[in-house]
Amino acid sequence: MPLWQIHHPVGAYSEQDKRAFATDITAIYTAVGLPAFYVVVLFHEVPAADYYVGGEPSDATVRIVVKHLARHLDDPDRRRVMTERLDATLHPYTRDRKLHWEFHVEESPRDLWMIAGLWPPDPGTDAERAWAEANRPLPY
Amino acid sequence: MPLWQIHHPVGAYSEQDKRAFATDITAIYTAVGLPAFYVVVLFHEVPAADYYVGGEPSDATVRIVVKHLARHLDDPDRRRVMTERLDATLHPYTRDRKLHWEFHVEESPRDLWMIAGLWPPDPGTDAERAWAEANRPLPY
Amino acid sequence: MPLWQIHHPVGAYSEQDKRAFATDITAIYTAVGLPAFYVVVLFHEVPAADYYVGGEPSDATVRIVVKHLARHLDDPDRRRVMTERLDATLHPYTRDRKLHWEFHVEESPRDLWMIAGLWPPDPGTDAERAWAEANRPLPY
Repeated sequence: MPLWQIHHPVGAYSEQDKRAFATDITAIYTAVGLPAFYVVVLFHEVPAADYYVGGEPSDATVRIVVKHLARHLDDPDRRRVMTERLDATLHPYTRDRKLHWEFHVEESPRDLWMIAGLWPPDPGTDAERAWAEANRPLPY
Repeated sequence: MPLWQIHHPVGAYSEQDKRAFATDITAIYTAVGLPAFYVVVLFHEVPAADYYVGGEPSDATVRIVVKHLARHLDDPDRRRVMTERLDATLHPYTRDRKLHWEFHVEESPRDLWMIAGLWPPDPGTDAERAWAEANRPLPY
Repeated sequence: MPLWQIHHPVGAYSEQDKRAFATDITAIYTAVGLPAFYVVVLFHEVPAADYYVGGEPSDATVRIVVKHLARHLDDPDRRRVMTERLDATLHPYTRDRKLHWEFHVEESPRDLWMIAGLWPPDPGTDAERAWAEANRPLPY
């Protein structure tokens, strides 16, 4: 959790860009106490001949699918704020480069999720804090 | 929304095929009033050595994952009709080419979805119609 | 259903490894009576420059997304046992190779799912048994 899959045009991002982008995404989650290593970001370069928007090939669209497992929000206001926070994180890598962008977040059940053979600790527990501090899974 | 991810054998589709396929998919949604640019179709070519069906490598299977965000159906009959409509759209690109095919649709919450920094307008609103007519997101 | 998407480092698996891995995954489901051909496993090789864990490029992480459609479990204990069963299946291909691994399972509605133009038969029916025995979809 979170898993970000970023479908982007060929050559849209340098290695430096991708690392900065992944670092900015990671910061969203470490800010609320999640271990950094929970955040997996995969970049998928998709040529225009494989990338259609409205039936037309596109070389200027970034489509992102985000999966949340560790934390789910119920309150509509907090959901809105969170989504706008994610969007703002994207701006330097989309809007500011004249790329079209779209993303959505999927929420998936925590109880069907394991890391390195362990059940991720419950939110806000000492074990979760220990994982965040060590930045790796620890038996608990 | 809709996002279609099409996993297909190497060389299964020409560029012309892919464009026609994406156009046919797009038509499903514009027919019910959605903006064409909502429809993103990504083709992923997967070699047989990476593509297993029942544990055997396959060079003749098309596996499609569809994500719906803009519209969700509750009525079981309408869900059936919609799913069969999607399946019929696939036939020229699967059945008629002797390819095995499988697809499913996932429904994801609207309130965790943004396009180009904007919240997509509610279904059936004037704003949604304006987006469909302009075929691009507009502040509203 | 099940669809397994395995994101892995470059060169992590030989063709023989991938086939063995897919075979082991398939066995989980045929053991409970599902047709083998329901099990689709896709391997995606992701270079370290496209693969970030906690903001750092990784060449030693396997991230797997599993989608279940044919069977959903309600009972918390059975969910735990099933998830641990999936994890154990991964060990020879992750833990035992000193790779970091993470997976989660998503459950998606059965009634938006078709195979080869047919509705997959209900769980435990004669039709499902016939599909399993023939290892292909049959009109019913």
